[in-house]
Amino acid sequence: MQFTSEQRLDDGVLEREFTLGEIPGVLWTPGAAPAPLILIGHPGGLHKRLPRLVARARHYAAQYGFAVAAIDAPGCGDRPRSAADEQFRADLRRAMQAGKPVDEIVDAFIVPLVEKAVPEWRTTLDALLSLPEIGGPVGYDGMIAIGIRLAVVEPRISAAAFFGQTFVPDTLREEARQVTIPLQFLMQWDDEGMERQPVLDLFDTFGSKEKTLHANLGGHTGTPWFEVDDAARFFGRHLK
Amino acid sequence: MQFTSEQRLDDGVLEREFTLGEIPGVLWTPGAAPAPLILIGHPGGLHKRLPRLVARARHYAAQYGFAVAAIDAPGCGDRPRSAADEQFRADLRRAMQAGKPVDEIVDAFIVPLVEKAVPEWRTTLDALLSLPEIGGPVGYDGMIAIGIRLAVVEPRISAAAFFGQTFVPDTLREEARQVTIPLQFLMQWDDEGMERQPVLDLFDTFGSKEKTLHANLGGHTGTPWFEVDDAARFFGRHLK
Repeated sequence: MQFTSEQRLDDGVLEREFTLGEIPGVLWTPGAAPAPLILIGHPGGLHKRLPRLVARARHYAAQYGFAVAAIDAPGCGDRPRSAADEQFRADLRRAMQAGKPVDEIVDAFIVPLVEKAVPEWRTTLDALLSLPEIGGPVGYDGMIAIGIRLAVVEPRISAAAFFGQTFVPDTLREEARQVTIPLQFLMQWDDEGMERQPVLDLFDTFGSKEKTLHANLGGHTGTPWFEVDDAARFFGRHLK
Repeated sequence: MQFTSEQRLDDGVLEREFTLGEIPGVLWTPGAAPAPLILIGHPGGLHKRLPRLVARARHYAAQYGFAVAAIDAPGCGDRPRSAADEQFRADLRRAMQAGKPVDEIVDAFIVPLVEKAVPEWRTTLDALLSLPEIGGPVGYDGMIAIGIRLAVVEPRISAAAFFGQTFVPDTLREEARQVTIPLQFLMQWDDEGMERQPVLDLFDTFGSKEKTLHANLGGHTGTPWFEVDDAARFFGRHLK
């Protein structure tokens, strides 16, 4: 793990960019060490530097004392896109413009993304946990498809916060039954891109004994900011 | 309003019992004044001194600086029961033992209870808000049927936390459309006494633009304690 930049932010958080082989990432750490760690993900195709992701990461670090790490998944953010990545984006755009269903296109993209992203998260976790400023346990707060697989194969993940959505391929939906860690599951009650019932069904599917659903009024991007605090307190209960 | 007892508790909260005409109640106040007020209710037939209600009230006061008041509704707790109250309890017990539906029996009890309890809450509110140690605004955290009517007719109620359930008569379910204050709506995902969908439908019915659903795994009495903190923070956002 090589740190490529370092900046002390005005909220006291230390922000460092790193690379780990081909993986580019960002690590935010609070003043006090060792801090429990939250792996923060982003939706496929978006960037580890997405403003609302950065705001959440800094809030977790500055207000709640978590170390937070984000990486770009293969083909996302700063990373080179393969011909298949470009094809997926073109297919998706065309289907959405034509008002056609996109589920099969998304499924065909997400399954290989998960196959590649999960081992990278585990490698990143090895490197992060070797730093003196980071102590276990570890939470995951990111893309649900990646999170399901990660929670099943990676015993160091102790709790997860998911944003419920319908773009979860059947194979991962099945794997969700094997997830047993505590979950906080957020959904938008009037998400314009998805039906309510399949999202509630996905919440139901997880095998966890402790799971909480939070639903707020409004569309896909309308999640109120207080849910970031709710997620931080959820992680506080399970990681501290 | 006459205070009939006064006790400083070990968490620093001042607990006073009072009577207001026929209405017996308890008031918990924190050290700092004036404090915003939470009216805390209890399910029909239970007591204002129900241990989990008292624990919630004291937590709101000691940890979050709210004044909290509970009263016994007519026919409940310390108050005399009418012949109709006794008849209801006998009918309910008989139907439940026979495994028969109880909805009509409960509806027939709840509508008159609401008719009597809501004016009493408003009278109590007048008296409480005249105390120097209490400042507005006011939140309601109690029986949902009473809370719907109170939120519609009482403009001093600024936010409400409800426990979602199916024992809400149709007439009050209709009134829920007129409720526009911010809501936090709690439900148990596996409540043995009720179906999930009618509870979700009730959440949907409220006219409020800001409303959040919290659902936790487990049966009717299995709500985790952290939901008390979540409710306190919800009230903190709207009453402070």
